[in-house]
Amino acid sequence: MTYCVALKLNAGLVFASDSRTNAGIDQIACFKKMRSFIKEGDRVIMILSSGNLSITQNAINLLEQKGRREARNIWTVDSMFDVAQLLGECLREVRKQDGVFLAQNNVDASANFIIGGQIQTEDTRLFMVYAEGNFIEAGAETPYFQIGETKYGKPIIDRVITPQTPLSEAVKCVLVSFDSTMRSNLSVGLPIDIACYSQGGLRLDFEQHITQDDPYFSQISRRWSDGLKGVFASLPNPEWLTDAGLNNHLPPDYS
Amino acid sequence: MTYCVALKLNAGLVFASDSRTNAGIDQIACFKKMRSFIKEGDRVIMILSSGNLSITQNAINLLEQKGRREARNIWTVDSMFDVAQLLGECLREVRKQDGVFLAQNNVDASANFIIGGQIQTEDTRLFMVYAEGNFIEAGAETPYFQIGETKYGKPIIDRVITPQTPLSEAVKCVLVSFDSTMRSNLSVGLPIDIACYSQGGLRLDFEQHITQDDPYFSQISRRWSDGLKGVFASLPNPEWLTDAGLNNHLPPDYS
Repeated sequence: MTYCVALKLNAGLVFASDSRTNAGIDQIACFKKMRSFIKEGDRVIMILSSGNLSITQNAINLLEQKGRREARNIWTVDSMFDVAQLLGECLREVRKQDGVFLAQNNVDASANFIIGGQIQTEDTRLFMVYAEGNFIEAGAETPYFQIGETKYGKPIIDRVITPQTPLSEAVKCVLVSFDSTMRSNLSVGLPIDIACYSQGGLRLDFEQHITQDDPYFSQISRRWSDGLKGVFASLPNPEWLTDAGLNNHLPPDYS
Repeated sequence: MTYCVALKLNAGLVFASDSRTNAGIDQIACFKKMRSFIKEGDRVIMILSSGNLSITQNAINLLEQKGRREARNIWTVDSMFDVAQLLGECLREVRKQDGVFLAQNNVDASANFIIGGQIQTEDTRLFMVYAEGNFIEAGAETPYFQIGETKYGKPIIDRVITPQTPLSEAVKCVLVSFDSTMRSNLSVGLPIDIACYSQGGLRLDFEQHITQDDPYFSQISRRWSDGLKGVFASLPNPEWLTDAGLNNHLPPDYS
């Protein structure tokens, strides 16, 4: 299983992905699910992927290869909209080529991408590419996209993130979101790749590979867990249950 | 969408279900998803249901009808294991009868149940009945079952509930779990039905119908939200991001 999330804030973009890949019951390995295409001063493009590993890898490899062989490519287009379109086309091409063979063995050939970044003077943009190759763009109302195991990590993002959130706080929120996901779904696992891009910089400001021993992540994880338990303990018990005489009820001497 | 959860604690059982049913885009209505079969001093049996409403209703109606017409029925068997089996059989019977017609219109005929309670001197027991009519039982390692929209409400249960949890705290936890679910999935909605059974009582101790105006639920919801935000705010920002000079970064004067 995979968990990837990307935020589009006024201050810039934050990208994060886990690295665990599960190809059959006993084949668990780590593959990077974050790819960058960067030419400083010109463009920063980040891609996160989830789904069938051969499909996602080959779609991105094809995107990269076309960057060397075709005129209209990831390095020459002047809008992130075009880049999302190019990625969707590559995904369709790979699925057309491999999909029928995978279908013969009932292998799921679906794949999703989050792609974002900035090209020259265009604003930063963030897109989600669906398994069919079509895509949508993030806006101020929904300033983030998730792919993979999305539900466990969504509530904290919904509670905290707005377009005004500073990058540092956004990174903290993304790590709490990963902590919640990994706690509830063991097939999402460390290391986490996390990257930050400041609007207008046209270079990747910051990239971190968070492993099992990362002291900051361990601290966040422990303090968040303790904090939640503390808040829960501080909530009052239901009065109507007290009234019914069941509060702190002990089982009768029955069995 | 539906959310139902039931806990099996040393002190007894807690059951909760929402009431929103979605049958097509513009047909949203409230149906009770909790049914009780109670003969005080003899047995307390509670059923929660999710899935196709006609399938779940008819399976339970059939169970009830057989209770009046057949010798081996929900009122005569002496173990909750038999009751789970009877419910599974009713589900199979209804699916056999209606399934082929639903399939013609690609209507999902799946249905799940949580069924729990106590019969005479047997311990309290809790089962989950799958769409195929087979079932599993809760134990000390996993003292709860959820059906429907399960993910958003799972983390708080995993953090808080053990077999030793008192009933009042368990009810509080279940309400927080519903609050998280309803916040992230708007198709799960109030009112919530909640019921408590104390081990050995052989009567339903307590049943509450929680509507929009319930002051306790509103308070829990608000304090939980404020508390989470407070814990999040108290977590330190990542040092490595401060080091990179991005902490509280403001967007440059670019566009």
